[in-house]
Amino acid sequence: MELTYHTDYAFRVLMYAGANPGRRVTLAEIAKAYDISKEHLRKVVHGLARAGLLTTVKGRAGGMELGRDPAAIRVGDVVELMEGSMAIVNCSRQPCPLTGHCSLKGVFNRGRKAFLEELNTATLADLLDEPPTLGGIRILAATH
Amino acid sequence: MELTYHTDYAFRVLMYAGANPGRRVTLAEIAKAYDISKEHLRKVVHGLARAGLLTTVKGRAGGMELGRDPAAIRVGDVVELMEGSMAIVNCSRQPCPLTGHCSLKGVFNRGRKAFLEELNTATLADLLDEPPTLGGIRILAATH
Repeated sequence: MELTYHTDYAFRVLMYAGANPGRRVTLAEIAKAYDISKEHLRKVVHGLARAGLLTTVKGRAGGMELGRDPAAIRVGDVVELMEGSMAIVNCSRQPCPLTGHCSLKGVFNRGRKAFLEELNTATLADLLDEPPTLGGIRILAATH
Repeated sequence: MELTYHTDYAFRVLMYAGANPGRRVTLAEIAKAYDISKEHLRKVVHGLARAGLLTTVKGRAGGMELGRDPAAIRVGDVVELMEGSMAIVNCSRQPCPLTGHCSLKGVFNRGRKAFLEELNTATLADLLDEPPTLGGIRILAATH
C-alpha cells in the first residue's frame, strides 16, 4: 500500500508553497528543490489548481501560491483528490467466482473511510512543525 | 492507493480454502478458478503458510487448508502480513529539503493504523456472506 507519486508530489508542492508565504513560487524552483522532473510536477500543479488548492499566475512574474489558508487544507482531502476513486481491491480485473458472495470490497471501503477520516484530522498547517513564516523559507533556501 | 497483487491473491486463496472446508484444495485448482498464474500464487501461499494461516501437505493427496478458524483470521492482519512495513510515503527516495521539519510521515502512520483497525473488525468468516459449508463449494464449483 503506497500512494501514487502524484499524491507524494502534491504534498511537496503544497508544503513548498506553504513554507514560502507572500511570494509566488515557480515550477522550476520546486522541481530543483526536490529533484523531480518539471513534467511530472506540471500535471500535479494543474490538478491542485483546478481544485482551488493553488492559484497560479502565468507570465514573467508568474508562479503559484496556496489558494487557501494552510489550516483549511486537510490532508485526507488532498489524498482523495489525487488518488481518485481509490478502489483498493480490483474486483473487475479478472472473473472472480466469489463475486456476489464476497464482502471484501465493503470491508475495504470502510477501511478507506477510516484512513481518510484520520488524515483529515491534520491540515497542511500541521505538516510543517514550525510557523512557515519563520523556519520554512530558510530551510528550503539552504538546499539550492 | 491500491494493495499489491500479493494481498489481493492472499484473500482469494484464503476465501477459496475457507469456502471448501473439510478438504485440501490445490494450487492448480485455485489458479484455474481465478485465472491467475500458479507461479504468482505459489509465493503467496508460502507466505500464508509461514504465518500459520494455511497448512500445506505435500504429495499426491496434498494441498492446503486453512490453518485457523475463519473467524480467527482478521482482515487487517492479512493486509499487514502481505504488505509488509507499508511505508505509505517514501521519504527516502530523494533528498527532501523538508526532512526533519515535516510531519507527513507521522500523519500517514496514524491513517494506516486507523485503516488496519477498521479492517480488523472483520474476519475471513465475515467475507463470505453464506456459511461456507453451504453455498461456498457450489458457487466455486460452478465456474470450472
